Amino acid sequence: MRRLGDGVEAAMHCALVLAGLPDGAVIPGRDLAVLYDLSESYLLKHLRALTAAGVTEATSGPRGGYRLARDPANITMLDVVEAIDGPGPAFVCREIRQCGPVASKEPCNYKKNCLIRVRMLQAEKLWRDSLRGQTLADLARDAAPMIDETTKRALAAYVDAAKR
Amino acid sequence: MRRLGDGVEAAMHCALVLAGLPDGAVIPGRDLAVLYDLSESYLLKHLRALTAAGVTEATSGPRGGYRLARDPANITMLDVVEAIDGPGPAFVCREIRQCGPVASKEPCNYKKNCLIRVRMLQAEKLWRDSLRGQTLADLARDAAPMIDETTKRALAAYVDAAKR
Ligand code: FES
Ligand code: FES
Repeated sequence: MRRLGDGVEAAMHCALVLAGLPDGAVIPGRDLAVLYDLSESYLLKHLRALTAAGVTEATSGPRGGYRLARDPANITMLDVVEAIDGPGPAFVCREIRQCGPVASKEPCNYKKNCLIRVRMLQAEKLWRDSLRGQTLADLARDAAPMIDETTKRALAAYVDAAKR
Repeated sequence: MRRLGDGVEAAMHCALVLAGLPDGAVIPGRDLAVLYDLSESYLLKHLRALTAAGVTEATSGPRGGYRLARDPANITMLDVVEAIDGPGPAFVCREIRQCGPVASKEPCNYKKNCLIRVRMLQAEKLWRDSLRGQTLADLARDAAPMIDETTKRALAAYVDAAKR
């Protein structure tokens, strides 16, 4: 598989932080960048992609920042990945079976999709379905017991100080 | 998912053609390119990648050409895809959870993999396993009844004339 956009890791971690914000609060992109030691321009590019895809919302002004655009139970890992990498298929069939000297001139011989295409798309459907089956709420719930208490408290304090 | 290399479609179709060659026979790259109306240099690049990955073998000289390096029942769709696109993971975790001001200084707090990484890799494992579960022999067997008799005969005649 081609490497995913390297913003996926940052986008996913930031989305999880936003999932923990109190209702209506936002957090500036700059503070999310500092939290993960990322360059602000790098992260803002990915936050803008999340916003364009309807995963996050941006509020402007001196008290502006980012929040999730909907309930974390309604945002899947696939939503985040596709916001960064686009929703298109990984395998693109250009119907090469219909090219060249031995191809049939009868279009009806190509009514059924090429089996290579079918199986390539079946495989990526499994990937997509797996990521679609995990919401940010699932991730937040399952990750919580894996994080040590000190880090959890430090993160909560950081978010609390940064939120608007 | 990022778009796969656009050589995957050509590589897969050519590998299926090679799967139908009689034992020991080869077919020149040029004839494979003409068969699918592809530029010869474009296809040769991908045939060389298949050879480098051990999927095909090249014989040289005026009667040289390409054949599969092993039985089509032992070559999976994943082998072909990874020959073109590389075998690396799609999701690369750079451990950003360990970066920044709130990260724990205790390495033992990071002994378990980050849950985001775990679930991203679970998803791509499904993709990989699906393609690993289909061999060229499976594809050839299942595709045969989907191709009309005239095209099948034209393809057999083309391959027969081109093979060495
Ligand atoms: S024609 Fe596109 S994959 Fe076969
Ligand atoms: S630290 Fe890499 S995915 Fe979480």
